[in-house]
Amino acid sequence: MTTAAPRFPAARYGKRLSRAAELGAAAGLDALLITPGPDLRYLTGSRAASFERLTCLVIPTDGSTPSVVVPRLELASLRESAIGELALPVHDWVDGQDPYAVVRELVPAATAVAVAEAMPALHLVPLTDRFGTAPSLATAVIRELRMVKDEDEIAALRRAGAAIDRVHARMGEWLRPGRTEAEVAADITAAIVEEGHTEADFVIVGSGPHGADPHHEVSDRVVEAGDIVVVDIGGPVEPGYYSDSTRTYSLGDPDPEIAARIAILEQAQRAAVEAVRPGVRAEAVDAAARDVLTAAGYGEVFVHRTGHGIGLSVHEEPYIVAGNDDELRPGMAFSIEPGIYFRGEWGARIEDIVVVTEDGCEPMNRQPHGLTVLPGTDA
Amino acid sequence: MTTAAPRFPAARYGKRLSRAAELGAAAGLDALLITPGPDLRYLTGSRAASFERLTCLVIPTDGSTPSVVVPRLELASLRESAIGELALPVHDWVDGQDPYAVVRELVPAATAVAVAEAMPALHLVPLTDRFGTAPSLATAVIRELRMVKDEDEIAALRRAGAAIDRVHARMGEWLRPGRTEAEVAADITAAIVEEGHTEADFVIVGSGPHGADPHHEVSDRVVEAGDIVVVDIGGPVEPGYYSDSTRTYSLGDPDPEIAARIAILEQAQRAAVEAVRPGVRAEAVDAAARDVLTAAGYGEVFVHRTGHGIGLSVHEEPYIVAGNDDELRPGMAFSIEPGIYFRGEWGARIEDIVVVTEDGCEPMNRQPHGLTVLPGTDA
Repeated sequence: MTTAAPRFPAARYGKRLSRAAELGAAAGLDALLITPGPDLRYLTGSRAASFERLTCLVIPTDGSTPSVVVPRLELASLRESAIGELALPVHDWVDGQDPYAVVRELVPAATAVAVAEAMPALHLVPLTDRFGTAPSLATAVIRELRMVKDEDEIAALRRAGAAIDRVHARMGEWLRPGRTEAEVAADITAAIVEEGHTEADFVIVGSGPHGADPHHEVSDRVVEAGDIVVVDIGGPVEPGYYSDSTRTYSLGDPDPEIAARIAILEQAQRAAVEAVRPGVRAEAVDAAARDVLTAAGYGEVFVHRTGHGIGLSVHEEPYIVAGNDDELRPGMAFSIEPGIYFRGEWGARIEDIVVVTEDGCEPMNRQPHGLTVLPGTDA
Repeated sequence: MTTAAPRFPAARYGKRLSRAAELGAAAGLDALLITPGPDLRYLTGSRAASFERLTCLVIPTDGSTPSVVVPRLELASLRESAIGELALPVHDWVDGQDPYAVVRELVPAATAVAVAEAMPALHLVPLTDRFGTAPSLATAVIRELRMVKDEDEIAALRRAGAAIDRVHARMGEWLRPGRTEAEVAADITAAIVEEGHTEADFVIVGSGPHGADPHHEVSDRVVEAGDIVVVDIGGPVEPGYYSDSTRTYSLGDPDPEIAARIAILEQAQRAAVEAVRPGVRAEAVDAAARDVLTAAGYGEVFVHRTGHGIGLSVHEEPYIVAGNDDELRPGMAFSIEPGIYFRGEWGARIEDIVVVTEDGCEPMNRQPHGLTVLPGTDA
C-alpha cells in the first residue's frame, strides 16, 4: 500500500509563506496583501479567480500567522489549496460587509504594505483608503521566491516543454497551403490539449507578411506555398507551469537568401543559450543574441527583448533585456527567443525555454531549431 | 451594392467618450485612465488584453481629445477598435521607456484622476507615484454609461439569451444518470459555442448535494437517477455581450416535497421579474423574491443576492441586492436568480436576464422556468 503525496504539502507552502514574510520584513514592509493570481497560487496553491468579491491572503511580516479573507460564497475554493493543510485562519464575509476593513483589522499597526501585481484597482483603491497610504508592489519580494524554481517546478517545466515539443513535431499535420491561419490554429489548439496541457494559452500562426509582426496572433489569411510561417505556442501543464516555444516553418523549399538569414537567427539563439550560466547578467544573454544579429546587419529588425521568465505566469521575472543587470542563478527559468522581422515580407523567431543549472543551462525544448521545411503543396 | 456598417462606428464610440468626459468633469475629476478590460471595450471597442505592458486610454475631462498610450509591439491591436476611426492620437512606447511618465505628460495639470476597476496594481502603483496622489475608481462615472444599454446592446443581449436558451433546450442530450458532471459540462461547453457564443465562459453543473453550493462548478461526481441538478451557463456573443441562465433539472420524477419547494422558488423568481419597472429601486426587486421565499420558510436558505447587471461583463452594475437604492431605468439589464440551498442534500436556482423597458421588463430567456424533468434512466 502506498500513500499518495498530498497535493498541497504544508511543508512546501509553509516554507514559501515564511520566506515571503522574512523577505518582506527585510524590505521594510509590515504586511503583504495577495489577491488571486499567480502569486497566490505560488504561496498557497489556490487557483481562486474571483474578481468582483475580495479574496485576500494577508501575510504579516512579523512572523505571526498569515490569514485569508474570502467571500463566504467562495469558501469552497479554498479546499483546493494548502490553506486547510496549513490551518491558516479564514475570515469569511458576506455581501453587505466591508472586506477591506476586515483586512485592515488583521494588520492594525501596518503602515508599509505591499500588494500583488495582479490586484485590480477595484480592490486596491479601497484598501489604499483603509490603510491611509498607497501600497507598494510586492513584486520585489515575491520575485525573489518565484524566480528561482525548485526541483518540482523544474520537473513541471520539463513536462511542459516536452508536451509543446510534441505539438511542434506534428506541425505538418495541420500547416499546409490552402488553409487559413485560423484553421491551422484551431487544430494546434486541440493538439496542445491532446499532448498534455490543461489548455492552450496562446497560438500565434504568422504566415508570410504576418510573420513580420511579432504580436500578430491569427487571421483568415490563407497560407500559401512558399510562405515562411512563425508558430509560437504554449499553455499550462499541471500544476500550472507554462510551455512557450516558437519554431519557424517554410512551406516548400525556401529562398536561399531567406534560409541564410534564418540560419543567422539560429546562430543568435544558440549564442544566447550558450551564454547562460550562474553569475552572468540577464542583459548579457540579450547582448549575446543581439551581437550576432547586429554583426550580420539585422540588429535593427530584432525589435524586442530576448526573453522573459516563465513559471506559473507566461511572462515573469527575470526579463532577458538590456538594462537588467540581475545575475542569473541556478533554477531561474526563461525564454530565449530572438526574432527578425521584415515588414510586409516575412519574419522568423526561434524560442526555447531554458533553466539555469550549476554550470550552464538545460533547454526544456528539443525540437530542431532551424527553418523546418514542410510540403509546399496540398497533396 | 450595399455598404456594410463600420464595425466600430465613430459616432457611437465618440459619443461614449464625450459622455465619459462630461460625467468625469461633473464628478470633479480631471482625467480618466482606462486600461484593457470591459471599460476600454465599451469606450473604444478595443479588446486589447495586455497585462504586463501598459496600454492606457487617457480621457481629459476638459473636452480635449482623448489619447492612447500603447506598447509599440501591440500597436496592431488598436486596428480592432474605433481608435483609428476617431483619429485619437496614439503614443507608442518601447521596452526601456517609462509609459507612466507618458501618461502623466498627457494630462500634466491633472490632480483628481480616476482609473478603470480592472487596472492591475502593476500599473496603478507606478501611476499613483507619477501623479503624486491616489487615484479613485472611475466606476461611478463609467457605470452611468454602461449600466443603461442602447438598442444595439439590447439586441446583442437578445441574441445571447436566445443562444443560451437553445443550449438549455438540448440539455437532455447530455444530462443523464451515469455520466460525471465534468462529462456533461464538456458537452455543454461545446454546445454553447455551437449555438452561437464565441466561447463558453462558465458552466456550472451542480448535481445532488453539489447543487447546494451556489458556487460549485463541476466535479467528477457521477450524476444519479433522482438527482436534482442546477445548470448555470453562459458566455459572450459578438460583439462581447454575455448570456447567463440557470435552470434546475430532475433526473426522473422528483420527490413531491422537492417539487413543491422548487415551485415556490419559481414563484419567487416570477415575483421579482414582475416587480421590475422604471423607478423601482434595485433592492425592491431583491425583496420581491426574498419575501416569497421568507413567507414560505426558505428565507434562510436563499443565501445570495437576487441578481447582477450584465453586458460586456458577466457581473456589473446594477446589483439587485439589499441596500442598493438605485432606481431602475429603461435599458438596464440584469439577472434575476433566486436560489434555495439545502446543505448536503440539494439546491435549485432559476435565472433569467431581463432588460428594463418603459413599463416593465423584457426577459432575454424564454425556456420553461419550473423544474424540468429528464429521463432518470440510461436507456
